[in-house]
Amino acid sequence: MTLAALGERRIIEIIQKQLDIMPEMPIPFGDDVSAYDLGNGKMAILKTDFLVDKTDVPPGMSLWQAARKAVIMNISDFAAKGVRPLALLVSLALPRDMNGKDIEEIGKGLNSGAREYDTHVIGGDTGEALNLIINPSVFGIAKKGRVALRSGAIPGDFVAVTGFFGNTSAGLKILTEEIKASPALRRALVNSVLMPHARLAEGLILTQTGAVSAAIDSSDGLAWSLHEISEASHVGFLIDRLPIAHEAEGFAKTNGLDPLELAMYGGEEYELVLTIKPRLWRKAEQAIENVGGKLMLIGKATSMRKVLLATNGKKQEIEARGYEHFVG
Amino acid sequence: MTLAALGERRIIEIIQKQLDIMPEMPIPFGDDVSAYDLGNGKMAILKTDFLVDKTDVPPGMSLWQAARKAVIMNISDFAAKGVRPLALLVSLALPRDMNGKDIEEIGKGLNSGAREYDTHVIGGDTGEALNLIINPSVFGIAKKGRVALRSGAIPGDFVAVTGFFGNTSAGLKILTEEIKASPALRRALVNSVLMPHARLAEGLILTQTGAVSAAIDSSDGLAWSLHEISEASHVGFLIDRLPIAHEAEGFAKTNGLDPLELAMYGGEEYELVLTIKPRLWRKAEQAIENVGGKLMLIGKATSMRKVLLATNGKKQEIEARGYEHFVG
Repeated sequence: MTLAALGERRIIEIIQKQLDIMPEMPIPFGDDVSAYDLGNGKMAILKTDFLVDKTDVPPGMSLWQAARKAVIMNISDFAAKGVRPLALLVSLALPRDMNGKDIEEIGKGLNSGAREYDTHVIGGDTGEALNLIINPSVFGIAKKGRVALRSGAIPGDFVAVTGFFGNTSAGLKILTEEIKASPALRRALVNSVLMPHARLAEGLILTQTGAVSAAIDSSDGLAWSLHEISEASHVGFLIDRLPIAHEAEGFAKTNGLDPLELAMYGGEEYELVLTIKPRLWRKAEQAIENVGGKLMLIGKATSMRKVLLATNGKKQEIEARGYEHFVG
Repeated sequence: MTLAALGERRIIEIIQKQLDIMPEMPIPFGDDVSAYDLGNGKMAILKTDFLVDKTDVPPGMSLWQAARKAVIMNISDFAAKGVRPLALLVSLALPRDMNGKDIEEIGKGLNSGAREYDTHVIGGDTGEALNLIINPSVFGIAKKGRVALRSGAIPGDFVAVTGFFGNTSAGLKILTEEIKASPALRRALVNSVLMPHARLAEGLILTQTGAVSAAIDSSDGLAWSLHEISEASHVGFLIDRLPIAHEAEGFAKTNGLDPLELAMYGGEEYELVLTIKPRLWRKAEQAIENVGGKLMLIGKATSMRKVLLATNGKKQEIEARGYEHFVG
């Protein structure tokens, strides 16, 4: 069976099956970050996530933007877990036909991504390959028991997100399928793809509230994120407000596209998808507002293990699909 | 200027020039590992080093061996610095035509490499690329001031290595140029390439002696390692014993090759190259013997900044060359 037939998630399963599990692993395989128990109530938090030119860099994205994005992707996972990134290493696989100017641009992009989140690139490795691959790995420290896993949601918890969805899907369509949009709309949508932001301030402040029961970033799409929490926490979700961005909604209308499709099954969006303890909702909402963000209630966790969307009086099931490497 | 013309070291320089330097960086750019100051006299130690099928996996090396080697490469840098690896992440860029069995083999190889050194793979990432790239990143903790940098050698220090050199060069020649050798010799030489070992026990025990003034692993070749310490420490070296493996010497003789070339300019060898404070030599030697290793005196650090080899009464300069990505 080829990798395309297996798909990324099955590949990861196969690898994990070969690995001896570290005793007392503070965060299980498959969560947004990994952890090592340092004793004294502290954990080292580690994350690596890489970008490949062919699959993760749309046409129109500069090398500077690609390098910056590779950093943001990783910091977003730290944001979801409410952990401050302290330092990054970066591995760079570089195609031979690049030149010194390209390398400079990549270096500047890495630095920008790191500095925006008050951290630094402190080392790395380079080598030659057919693809450009930018692979940051990030280190941080967290208190034990203070990291929101994917597995902590219980029925009745509120479901919330830190921003609207759909703009990156629309932006990707503009970049890859050359679908037209007005200049201003085009700029907004494309910009959401080229210049993503990680919700680090939001993630860090939320950790302090103790309000979050489960968290994930939405890099594989909102639908997929909900299904990941659903599976890890053994809950379902009833979503009653689709957090679609109005730009994406307008774009969908003009081009005869399904707004639900754009908002749910996109990916490359770096919002946080959270479940919040109801009694601490106001505290969480206030904390997020204090750092200039917004926390939007979109539904509730349920004991029935389905992800349902209820809009205009009818319920539909949200499928477990989203962006997956190797597939397609 | 293409990457081939620039060469790996210049590429790294260009990238570093774009990076803001983290204040109070406990280990400078370019050493074997990177570090983050945790306070309380401790540092987080981080390392990432990747293997690419095209450049780092010789013919005859299985996927299991390649995955294991990728881990060993990284652990060897921890060994050089005397730091225990505590946990690994692994990024895997996988070509589409691989299958589930290949993935299984890679997983098993990663696990073997980690378990041999009493550590675990605790996470990672996968994605699709044209090359197979195996990119571990390693985490550890060290006491501040207890990590032997490349920069600590002073004139008069002894130069020592933890093993003999030349077998991997000879083994690579057998694998890539199909040079013949007797079955037993072939096995020994090829095995040194396919099944490298990191000198972790040696590195860890040496740290405790306080005897090491500078250290590096020899993955880019003995000559290159000596030049790296020379440059970082502002010293030269007078090497008066060439630590050539007798297998490599025999192979050189039979095939009309220069044994010096094999021993000095090879690479893919994971010995430690160390400078030792003379008054602590016996202590260091004893410590290494206690863990079943050997510490071989090969020369002295000098104030004249040249790397010289003195054999049979004549001195020759050892060039600053070795394995470099992108070049050739």
